[in-house]
Amino acid sequence: MGQAPLLRYRGTIEYDGTDYGGFQVQPGQPTIQGELERILEHLTQAHVRVHGAGRTDAGVHATGQVVHFDAYWTHGCGDLQRAMNALLPGDIAVRALREADQSFHARFSARRRLYVYTVCESPVRAPLWRRFAHHVRACLDVSAMQEAACALVGRQDFAAFGQPPVGTNSVRTVFAAQWREAASERCSATWAPARRLCFEIEADAFLRGMVRRIVGTLLAVGMGSMAPQGFRDVLASRDTGRAAPPAPACGLCLCQVSYAEDAGQTGPTATGPGAA
Amino acid sequence: MGQAPLLRYRGTIEYDGTDYGGFQVQPGQPTIQGELERILEHLTQAHVRVHGAGRTDAGVHATGQVVHFDAYWTHGCGDLQRAMNALLPGDIAVRALREADQSFHARFSARRRLYVYTVCESPVRAPLWRRFAHHVRACLDVSAMQEAACALVGRQDFAAFGQPPVGTNSVRTVFAAQWREAASERCSATWAPARRLCFEIEADAFLRGMVRRIVGTLLAVGMGSMAPQGFRDVLASRDTGRAAPPAPACGLCLCQVSYAEDAGQTGPTATGPGAA
Repeated sequence: MGQAPLLRYRGTIEYDGTDYGGFQVQPGQPTIQGELERILEHLTQAHVRVHGAGRTDAGVHATGQVVHFDAYWTHGCGDLQRAMNALLPGDIAVRALREADQSFHARFSARRRLYVYTVCESPVRAPLWRRFAHHVRACLDVSAMQEAACALVGRQDFAAFGQPPVGTNSVRTVFAAQWREAASERCSATWAPARRLCFEIEADAFLRGMVRRIVGTLLAVGMGSMAPQGFRDVLASRDTGRAAPPAPACGLCLCQVSYAEDAGQTGPTATGPGAA
Repeated sequence: MGQAPLLRYRGTIEYDGTDYGGFQVQPGQPTIQGELERILEHLTQAHVRVHGAGRTDAGVHATGQVVHFDAYWTHGCGDLQRAMNALLPGDIAVRALREADQSFHARFSARRRLYVYTVCESPVRAPLWRRFAHHVRACLDVSAMQEAACALVGRQDFAAFGQPPVGTNSVRTVFAAQWREAASERCSATWAPARRLCFEIEADAFLRGMVRRIVGTLLAVGMGSMAPQGFRDVLASRDTGRAAPPAPACGLCLCQVSYAEDAGQTGPTATGPGAA
């Protein structure tokens, strides 16, 4: 393999995070990064460090996690992607892979991240959704949750919903935050018995645990135990002690990460209002 | 518990069949029937036999399996349903439970069964769908599959797609058989990277393995290795040797079972054409 050039690769990764201890390598636990590094070492006979755009927590899923890594590989991107997918476990896949410029960094080059949090509203548990949605028995007031969520949009201090890395601040820009009810397609007779609500939130970056604390607090609004004005007060307080407990990991999915180099190829989710 | 009356109950059961050896009790394997009987015995202190409308195979799912059982229980249906859901594993739930007439039989009283088979069409595996959809890399010709599927509707001999129980025949009435593309809802950013096709088939009853053999053969049409006329020839041949291998269990879901006693409360799936 000594002849192969060291190239930077950019990959889009989908995973069912249920059985993993999160994205980031941790001792004694299976992780997404760990699985990717293990099979890349096997394929290239060299240690490869994988960098992800977002360090998703244990149990959190992704359809659009972006990673980069540098590897010696002679056979082209398509072959590397196929080889990775042949070796990765069934709950992780490389959805896309291409060469990237040496300046590309999955985390530091990212401009926007889109997370979707799914809630399954039903008097009874919904076994087919249990890995991918948070089950809520209460009938949620979606318009109250949406009214509260509107306060999130803009550039502001989100300290109420998470702590920033040491030496940095908790100011972030939320581009869009909205609740949607999944269309009741006839085709999905499979999923009919439950009402499925999705909360989409897109920002330049997120604090650790921010989406789940926001959703937990919005659900308190949806259940009537907090008014939309109460949610705005929590946000303004910059006090995590006033936010509700984080919503469970299973409902959360990192769906898209956007980069400046992708300008002009924006997906359907990049059309929200700009930064306030 | 000696004072409790012996009543017949009718339940609607949802399950993720991935980790089960099918509906029906089998030695040495977890089964849906086995789990239901185990917790009913625990709750009523008596052996309870559970009868299902359809004996789904290993790995097949249900959102609308119907069961009946006779049990001694003093505390009302709502309490029994809650107690069952509290004890059942996370991948099985009782979605509805009510008292039924002694003449009600989940299997023999059933008039129609609706199955949905889900195909995930994508060049790359889709980890979030791996438990509930059959992954197909090829680009499928849906209109050819639909043209072929039309031949299924009506009362005819389906011996090409399965064998009847001993002493009975293989004539069944298919009320509807259609392919649909799941709407690409913006909300489901979660599932975006793959195209999802659902095959809905409703009949008075099905032969063992019939839906999976039909789908396997329709996929041969979709991939271009069989023409729609070839599919009609297979059906007319009454020869299982001419059908394609059954499609994998993971894509199949028993979505609805209809009974004469439900007339007037028909769901959205009971509006197809009548028996030919």
